[in-house]
Amino acid sequence: MRVRVSPPARMTTVHDLPTPAVVVDIDALEHNLATMAARLPGPLLRPHVKAHKSTALADLQRRYGHHHFTCATVREMVGMAHAGLGDDLLLANEVVDLDRLRELASLQDRAMITVAVDSDATVDAAARAGIRHVVIDVNIGLPRCGCAPSTAGRLADAARRRGLVVRGVMGYEGHLMVSDDRAAQRRETLSAMQVLNKAALDVGGDVISAGGTGNHDVHAEHRADTGVTEVQAGSYALMDTYYGTLGLPFRQAVSLLGTVISTQEKWAVADVGLKSLGMDHGNPSIAGCKVWFCSDEHITFATEKVESSAAGSSAAGAITMRAAQPTVGSRVRVIPAHVDPTMAMHDHLWLVRGDEVLDRWPIDLRGW
Amino acid sequence: MRVRVSPPARMTTVHDLPTPAVVVDIDALEHNLATMAARLPGPLLRPHVKAHKSTALADLQRRYGHHHFTCATVREMVGMAHAGLGDDLLLANEVVDLDRLRELASLQDRAMITVAVDSDATVDAAARAGIRHVVIDVNIGLPRCGCAPSTAGRLADAARRRGLVVRGVMGYEGHLMVSDDRAAQRRETLSAMQVLNKAALDVGGDVISAGGTGNHDVHAEHRADTGVTEVQAGSYALMDTYYGTLGLPFRQAVSLLGTVISTQEKWAVADVGLKSLGMDHGNPSIAGCKVWFCSDEHITFATEKVESSAAGSSAAGAITMRAAQPTVGSRVRVIPAHVDPTMAMHDHLWLVRGDEVLDRWPIDLRGW
Repeated sequence: MRVRVSPPARMTTVHDLPTPAVVVDIDALEHNLATMAARLPGPLLRPHVKAHKSTALADLQRRYGHHHFTCATVREMVGMAHAGLGDDLLLANEVVDLDRLRELASLQDRAMITVAVDSDATVDAAARAGIRHVVIDVNIGLPRCGCAPSTAGRLADAARRRGLVVRGVMGYEGHLMVSDDRAAQRRETLSAMQVLNKAALDVGGDVISAGGTGNHDVHAEHRADTGVTEVQAGSYALMDTYYGTLGLPFRQAVSLLGTVISTQEKWAVADVGLKSLGMDHGNPSIAGCKVWFCSDEHITFATEKVESSAAGSSAAGAITMRAAQPTVGSRVRVIPAHVDPTMAMHDHLWLVRGDEVLDRWPIDLRGW
Repeated sequence: MRVRVSPPARMTTVHDLPTPAVVVDIDALEHNLATMAARLPGPLLRPHVKAHKSTALADLQRRYGHHHFTCATVREMVGMAHAGLGDDLLLANEVVDLDRLRELASLQDRAMITVAVDSDATVDAAARAGIRHVVIDVNIGLPRCGCAPSTAGRLADAARRRGLVVRGVMGYEGHLMVSDDRAAQRRETLSAMQVLNKAALDVGGDVISAGGTGNHDVHAEHRADTGVTEVQAGSYALMDTYYGTLGLPFRQAVSLLGTVISTQEKWAVADVGLKSLGMDHGNPSIAGCKVWFCSDEHITFATEKVESSAAGSSAAGAITMRAAQPTVGSRVRVIPAHVDPTMAMHDHLWLVRGDEVLDRWPIDLRGW
């Protein structure tokens, strides 16, 4: 896959980048996209753009064969449509803001727009805003959105009475994404899909959308049993240390490049902090170093070198730098624990191969 | 204090705001600014803008008598100078990026710019970039930036040899901000200040800058003992549930306004998630409700009403809404656990009084 190469003239290596900087290794990224496209080709994968919020990256996913996308916000839907990536956009989230839904509805002549609904109120909002297509969002175990499975058919009928086309169902088994016991994960995923398939029979339509990076393989390997028509994985493209523990076939593609700004005998401090890292999954990692803590603009890590841990070690390859015994001005790569909120904190990412900077991509789907 | 009132025509109450929305109650904010200005008037407080990243809010702090500000990033320094708030700006952080330092140096004819240094490398960067004024950042116990106290005098000499004016010292006793044992906090703060004052004697100059919201009262009440000339508090203006446990005289001024998008018998979901909340201090709070968990775009909370807890309860007053038994479309206020990274995630804040929207202020100092 050929990626457009047009770095700003002065920024030809990672050592020239202002920090903190989101750095994405193109080889790891393309490995991940190719691996997933082989397992869930074409419309079997509906990549979730909430994990990277970049239309440029979504366009690369399209070039790997996926023309249908999942979004979490109206902003993402609108941005994808304007970027010419609107072949089939699913807003896998509930929205009752009529102004936003009307903006979305106004794009329906140039993009295929489908919105999740899980209540009479969300059906009403979609109908009033002029949205044409919906899916019924069914709760399949995660205490979040989605109607009770037994009510899905009734809700579909209500939607059709309001003139909406009901394309089918979606569910998100988010509670089953990360598990030490992969046999149990498979068993519980199949069980959740039974619930979703039963609701799909009540609802009608031809879409059964579910799944994510953490159990994409269950869906890929047991399609006849899960019955899903598409998987909504997002994190697989860039990865993080949380998913990195699962033994998935994806490489760590994203890191936060920082500059060491202060050193003492036992610790060093780089300019990557809470405001540049999603922290809900805990501290980020630095290959070969023990991270002590993060504060708003800083990460403090021990200068004593530690044995490479599983988390983060796979990410150390692309950029050559000494994480241990750092000096002021040297660079360090910080691997986020959770990729989605991390990406949402940054204006742009730098696409690199090794130390070479290939391109700068806007993270243009931020906000709501 | 009179605040400019110019809300967008259609958004006259909080119920009209698109969500998630940062909402700041002007009465709580002004209470906080007045309370702090009474304790540490004028130049005794150097408000830290990293906690809100808004020049409009900084301008309000100026109107409460504080004309000197603390910043954590070059972006904040530049933005403050361009906003006409550059009487005396301290970058309380180390920077070795020559491009950024030169941009900062270019503003020295319109703003008083001072930069923290803690090593030969940071002195060298400041001197090469044409920065005129520095303070020596001294480590006083928190394992982060700051030179060893014993080396502060030598570093000041080195800075002066490079032509820099050394205005004095700063230190940040961040490890002493939050403590259950306030007597111990006072004792340890005074002990850290002894270290800083000793370094100040070695360094020269007339600035001794330290402290924060969590121990501002120690500095205010024991100025003769702490010896500091200014306190760098930031969180006091807006507050969060982390500082909210300390019994400080500040009110919860900021919350995240969300819309309930889905309900089930035992839980409800609003559109305030990880991407709109700093999560490093743990889950946010909703007055009267138990928060179960946050995900990227969602907060799931129990619909069963609980007794008001200390955290969050003080914030429930300004906007009338039923947090328990919510319906789809109703509004909910989410109190962040950590204000600084929360503000950094948003483009703007809404200034309100009760349900009335008074103004929209840009959060214009985001980024680096």
